[in-house]
Amino acid sequence: MHSLRFTAESSSDGMVERDFVLGEVPGVLWSPASGADRAPLILVGHDGGKHKKHPAMTGRAQSFVNGCGAHVAVIDAPGHGDRPRTAFDERVKAALAEARAAGEPVGPIVRHHNARVAELALPEFRAALDALQELPEIGTDGPVGYFGIRMGTSIGVPLVAVEPRITAAVFGLHWPDDLAEKAKQVTVPVEFDMQWDDEHIPREAGLALFDAFASQEKTLHANAGRQGELPRFEVDSAVRFFARHLGRAATSQA
Amino acid sequence: MHSLRFTAESSSDGMVERDFVLGEVPGVLWSPASGADRAPLILVGHDGGKHKKHPAMTGRAQSFVNGCGAHVAVIDAPGHGDRPRTAFDERVKAALAEARAAGEPVGPIVRHHNARVAELALPEFRAALDALQELPEIGTDGPVGYFGIRMGTSIGVPLVAVEPRITAAVFGLHWPDDLAEKAKQVTVPVEFDMQWDDEHIPREAGLALFDAFASQEKTLHANAGRQGELPRFEVDSAVRFFARHLGRAATSQA
Repeated sequence: MHSLRFTAESSSDGMVERDFVLGEVPGVLWSPASGADRAPLILVGHDGGKHKKHPAMTGRAQSFVNGCGAHVAVIDAPGHGDRPRTAFDERVKAALAEARAAGEPVGPIVRHHNARVAELALPEFRAALDALQELPEIGTDGPVGYFGIRMGTSIGVPLVAVEPRITAAVFGLHWPDDLAEKAKQVTVPVEFDMQWDDEHIPREAGLALFDAFASQEKTLHANAGRQGELPRFEVDSAVRFFARHLGRAATSQA
Repeated sequence: MHSLRFTAESSSDGMVERDFVLGEVPGVLWSPASGADRAPLILVGHDGGKHKKHPAMTGRAQSFVNGCGAHVAVIDAPGHGDRPRTAFDERVKAALAEARAAGEPVGPIVRHHNARVAELALPEFRAALDALQELPEIGTDGPVGYFGIRMGTSIGVPLVAVEPRITAAVFGLHWPDDLAEKAKQVTVPVEFDMQWDDEHIPREAGLALFDAFASQEKTLHANAGRQGELPRFEVDSAVRFFARHLGRAATSQA
């Protein structure tokens, strides 16, 4: 088992940012600058084609650090960010470009890609959680949440299904095809985002994935609009969801 | 046109409560004790079988007064609270008792009742809005919202469809049958609550009513559980929804 090795540290806006590597996997850990011993940890799975420090990730990290007093960790998924691209990644990229140029649906390609990445990422996320919990400021007794939409949901649903340390999760914007069976094993509180007029994911598909979760407490947030129009206020909602379930009061305004 | 006449005043927990009558309609107006000139006004339609000061109403009023700095007004619906019961009300009450005793669905009776009450309540709500806006502390230029679930949705959907002064609304827990056509005329931002495992309202029926709203901004919140299990945090969500749309920042914690 690898130990987590920090490679860089900076801080801004009340948040400490530490780059790390864990074996071959680069990641980033954001923490409250004020210190946060035994604070909750929120693992974030980034979206396909993005990476650990994409602005969408840093924005969410800021919200979770400020709003939940939490540590937030993101690792680059296989083939993303600072990790090498494989022949598989190149084939997917070419197939996506081809489908878009031809005006054909990209859904089947995205699903195939996400399923493969999720398979590879699952042990990496569990190893990252092991290593992060070895840090004295996190420890093994604090609550752990997971946030990931799109590809982050592909990774997160199988992860949360098998990882008892994760006790609350936010998912969204995905088809049920590869995930519904895993979702049936998820019993922790779930908040699930979908777009009512998603141009890629049929409405029934989004509803079916939400329906599949076995969680006694689960909430669907469906907003009018296309996939790219998921409202920013859903991040604020995720902050409150984690604050409710990970045991820290939200400190930021809605 | 009647003027609003205050009949009692008290205050507690930072909230002033004033009973009023408007013609034959009794109502209550809650306001921030700190004063709230030109603050938003939120009209609340109560649920069937309840009344203007049912604990569910006072609880929501407290949330909206504290969280949005708003005035909150509720009027007794026809046949409810301090208003006389008619032969229609007695027939509905008997039919409900009979259906429950026989283990038969109450939905058809509730829908019939709600549609009739809504028809009567519509002009009363518009008259109340006229009269409330004559009060100097409310005025005609402040934003107005509407909150009502179950029977409050029966009243609210036709009301918001024809009332341009109402610019944001929270609805929920209703069938589309009598309301979908009216919902198609609603264009203001809507937050809509449904229960995923509602024992009275089929899932497809709740989704169909949400779908019918013409609003460009609309959000569905579907929670696991039966109808009576609508989570309390949805009131907090309504506070933030109104704070976003009626132009006052939320001042309470989530």
